[in-house]
Amino acid sequence: MENNSEMKTNLTMLTDFYEITMANGYFTNGHRDTVVYFDMFFREIPDNGGYAIMAGVQQLVDYLENLKFTPEDLEYLRGCKIFSEEFIGYLRDFRFCCDVWSVPEGMPIFPGEPILTVRGPVIQAQFIETMILLTVNHQSLIATKANRICRAAQGRPVMEFGSRRAQGADGAILGARAAYIGGCCGTACTICDREYGVPALGTMAHSWIQLFDSELEAFRAYAREYPRNCTLLVDTYNVLKSGVPHAIQVFREEILPRGFRPGGIRIDSGDITYLSKKARKMLDDAGFPDCKICASNSLDEYIIRDMLMQGAKVDSFGVGERMITSSSHPVFGGVYKLSGVEGKDGVVTPKIKISENVSKITTPGFKKLWRLYDRSSGKALADVITLSDEVIDDTRPYEIFDPNFVWKRKTLTNFRAEDIRVQLFQNGRCLTRKQPLKELQSYCCEQVDTLWDEVKRFENPHKYYVDLSQKLWDVKSRLISEYSFGPNA
Amino acid sequence: MENNSEMKTNLTMLTDFYEITMANGYFTNGHRDTVVYFDMFFREIPDNGGYAIMAGVQQLVDYLENLKFTPEDLEYLRGCKIFSEEFIGYLRDFRFCCDVWSVPEGMPIFPGEPILTVRGPVIQAQFIETMILLTVNHQSLIATKANRICRAAQGRPVMEFGSRRAQGADGAILGARAAYIGGCCGTACTICDREYGVPALGTMAHSWIQLFDSELEAFRAYAREYPRNCTLLVDTYNVLKSGVPHAIQVFREEILPRGFRPGGIRIDSGDITYLSKKARKMLDDAGFPDCKICASNSLDEYIIRDMLMQGAKVDSFGVGERMITSSSHPVFGGVYKLSGVEGKDGVVTPKIKISENVSKITTPGFKKLWRLYDRSSGKALADVITLSDEVIDDTRPYEIFDPNFVWKRKTLTNFRAEDIRVQLFQNGRCLTRKQPLKELQSYCCEQVDTLWDEVKRFENPHKYYVDLSQKLWDVKSRLISEYSFGPNA
Repeated sequence: MENNSEMKTNLTMLTDFYEITMANGYFTNGHRDTVVYFDMFFREIPDNGGYAIMAGVQQLVDYLENLKFTPEDLEYLRGCKIFSEEFIGYLRDFRFCCDVWSVPEGMPIFPGEPILTVRGPVIQAQFIETMILLTVNHQSLIATKANRICRAAQGRPVMEFGSRRAQGADGAILGARAAYIGGCCGTACTICDREYGVPALGTMAHSWIQLFDSELEAFRAYAREYPRNCTLLVDTYNVLKSGVPHAIQVFREEILPRGFRPGGIRIDSGDITYLSKKARKMLDDAGFPDCKICASNSLDEYIIRDMLMQGAKVDSFGVGERMITSSSHPVFGGVYKLSGVEGKDGVVTPKIKISENVSKITTPGFKKLWRLYDRSSGKALADVITLSDEVIDDTRPYEIFDPNFVWKRKTLTNFRAEDIRVQLFQNGRCLTRKQPLKELQSYCCEQVDTLWDEVKRFENPHKYYVDLSQKLWDVKSRLISEYSFGPNA
Repeated sequence: MENNSEMKTNLTMLTDFYEITMANGYFTNGHRDTVVYFDMFFREIPDNGGYAIMAGVQQLVDYLENLKFTPEDLEYLRGCKIFSEEFIGYLRDFRFCCDVWSVPEGMPIFPGEPILTVRGPVIQAQFIETMILLTVNHQSLIATKANRICRAAQGRPVMEFGSRRAQGADGAILGARAAYIGGCCGTACTICDREYGVPALGTMAHSWIQLFDSELEAFRAYAREYPRNCTLLVDTYNVLKSGVPHAIQVFREEILPRGFRPGGIRIDSGDITYLSKKARKMLDDAGFPDCKICASNSLDEYIIRDMLMQGAKVDSFGVGERMITSSSHPVFGGVYKLSGVEGKDGVVTPKIKISENVSKITTPGFKKLWRLYDRSSGKALADVITLSDEVIDDTRPYEIFDPNFVWKRKTLTNFRAEDIRVQLFQNGRCLTRKQPLKELQSYCCEQVDTLWDEVKRFENPHKYYVDLSQKLWDVKSRLISEYSFGPNA
């Protein structure tokens, strides 16, 4: 259930100022109707991981559907005194009419591939750059991090607890949304439950314990109030000498109605690996082997992995700041680059951006993105970028090659080729339906399962192949040569 | 000019779910009218800096002024099936009635001091925890980072360019606001200009150059369109062989109307230190010594400092992802802890949270925060936290001491003591007026000037003193002893 009642801020003007100066310049320089292609791609996987997770697509759709310039926006622009009145009139009558293709939310994505393509009038396609990048960069960052953390937890539930350390309200709300897509079971962020249906979870803070005359009284009050899933925070004073014994005492006092079992305890400080083992034994010995232990406090995938390696008896994790900001790698570096210009005759002239840094050279042209799956194992073998009029025939052997080291070649057989992007907009009309988040989470989980374990490693993962078709490689090579003999000026 | 026309999202439900379960529990456990004190403080300065900058206070005020539960919120809570109907009725009639004190926006702040205090019914004071932390943590993080980056630029203008890599829309908009308080001269984020009056700046992207038949044509078109402050992006093909020569050619062609001088060039890739020196010479030789050079591309305080040390000829900087996410330290770890409970007789019982980690032990009681300035130099000497009924008499010598190493003592004379917090709310009524951002920026600059250079160092800064009054130290020591002999259960 998603209901955006309170969230309808018009973000049309959340755009870099240069998008507007350029739009105005295109308008007055004969490019009002010039149709272009832009690709979004990224260059580096956060945390040196083997893959990232696409997310934020629904918010991008919402943004594009709500694009409109209010009278206040136009007044503001007029006040800048650099935009022509004709251009402001164009914005007043603005109707979004681009085509947009995107990898679906929840799917693994890899560097260098066009995860999103926009085709349309350059004024429009340029204008939406900032929000496309902001939306997809942010949520892909958090979904990718959450997926890593959930993997480290090896099937144990992970809860998103980071609102208070998020970078702004959207950072909290949409970050929690993305974390859910990436695999988290819920969030502490209440509004994200109300708006997006991500289950909100939480029990008590230390202040609850402090307010009562004693820890025991605080636990008793809580157990009376919330007999279902009663989880007690045990580290306000001393976990093993006070918190756990008091929790056990309350569980024994049969404050919980008949038929209710104790929910669990939460440890939020100290050496959680050690404390959890001791607490587990105390709970087991007291006859509460089904009482869960939840851990929180500056966790991330590395700490969780180490805790579990050392035998921590933790049943679920609450993860805060390190997930909601992806603190070890807080930027998803997606970029948005011009890849082609369409002539009046419909022919696309490919465009390239050259750089001394090879990874910064763009791949020109209007393209398609294919994922090749092994038919017997179902595993993803490689992604191949082709020109848009190419089809990969998966009934015959297909040779892939490394676009930088072309002698590295491999012939695939018995595979299935899938054009993995979906069209979100056609001439400005939205073609997709809003999917329940639960479906996106399941989809993400299924898609990550198509990756080999070698790609999923935390350290030094196998580099998944992202190759170009021969035809696309030829176009790119030709353009690189042309520009290498000097700029085309 | 601030006009929040489009920004009025009701964020009442942006709260951790446990704030609501606790609020409901307080309500039904006889704590409906219990008055408590909460302090916000932080433990660590980002990037090992010598100080942080307080920011986000205005957005906190906005949030508190707009606190209300809509029928949809109440329906949502009712649907959770764990809250009493009386409690939901209480929320329906909710009227914020707390007192709030805060360090003003733009002021340097230090670890361990109560930068914000809330006094009021525990249900309310607890409920607002999440948004207090989110708002102040986020903007203080970015203002602190921006202040570092601006300091590295040694007076050269720094522009905030990070929207596309921000963690959500608020990350971009309010991040740009905080960056402006911290010292940036403007932002690329247009909506932040319209909403908060932060000057929006920007010229062109590489796609502008690519769209035209040649770089030269692209430059000419831009110069015709924007003769005022015409800044050309020179690194699409080759900075020294193509970009700068073409820029000079356009400047010479007198496309700019009489009386207009070329604005500048922007270099967005490559070895900017080297390129800027070469470009400077080319521009000077061509008769454009007043043409500015702007640098961008993954900059931060360290890179800017190194560039300037090596003699880069850069007049202004555009800083993106590393400022808008504070990427080297993306979390401001402010916390919000119960510090006291007020009896019906008005007497405050101080409360403490113990931890094995000394820096995690809270400072109990209702407190005041003083800054002591040297009367001759105007420099800040130390902050002193006292109980709220204490006054520091600055007409007499005053002895300060390290609260952890009490033999470290120092007697101050000829100083001025200022109670640096302002009251934002009294019984729920807002006492402050919205200040223009420009004023907050100037205030920040003045206040940072009161710090010694030793505190402002990037590496290994002098640790600014944050001490306790003797009376407060006694209270804290007593409570620590009480809990060290076992929990009070």
